[in-house]
Amino acid sequence: MAEDIRKLFGKNLRKIRGAQKISQEELAFRCGLHRTYVSSVERGERNISLENIQKLAEALEVSMKDLIPEE
Amino acid sequence: MAEDIRKLFGKNLRKIRGAQKISQEELAFRCGLHRTYVSSVERGERNISLENIQKLAEALEVSMKDLIPEE
Repeated sequence: MAEDIRKLFGKNLRKIRGAQKISQEELAFRCGLHRTYVSSVERGERNISLENIQKLAEALEVSMKDLIPEE
Repeated sequence: MAEDIRKLFGKNLRKIRGAQKISQEELAFRCGLHRTYVSSVERGERNISLENIQKLAEALEVSMKDLIPEE
């Protein structure tokens, strides 16, 4: 794979969050996750789990499939 | 949510694997994962990670988005 899936996921999350003009803090608050966790996911440092992908999707009001990057 | 996302993911994986007539053992072998791990994912017992979703998708030659269930 050309780029790490964690990095691709993080970029996609940042793009979707940015388009909604929501801060990392606000997103983290809505998910019940820590701001530093959301930040590390966006930097591609975390191998995020299915349940946390669901939390992010619900908080952003997008489908989980939308959060999964194009490969 | 009506049904646990882990269970929905597991059912979807089983459906896709079954349609390809691949055993859990064969799928696990292709992914470099353990057969009992694949079995527990299909039963909805595991909060699978992004990287393991990618391994399953590559082994099944489907997109990661295909493995994510409809919500």
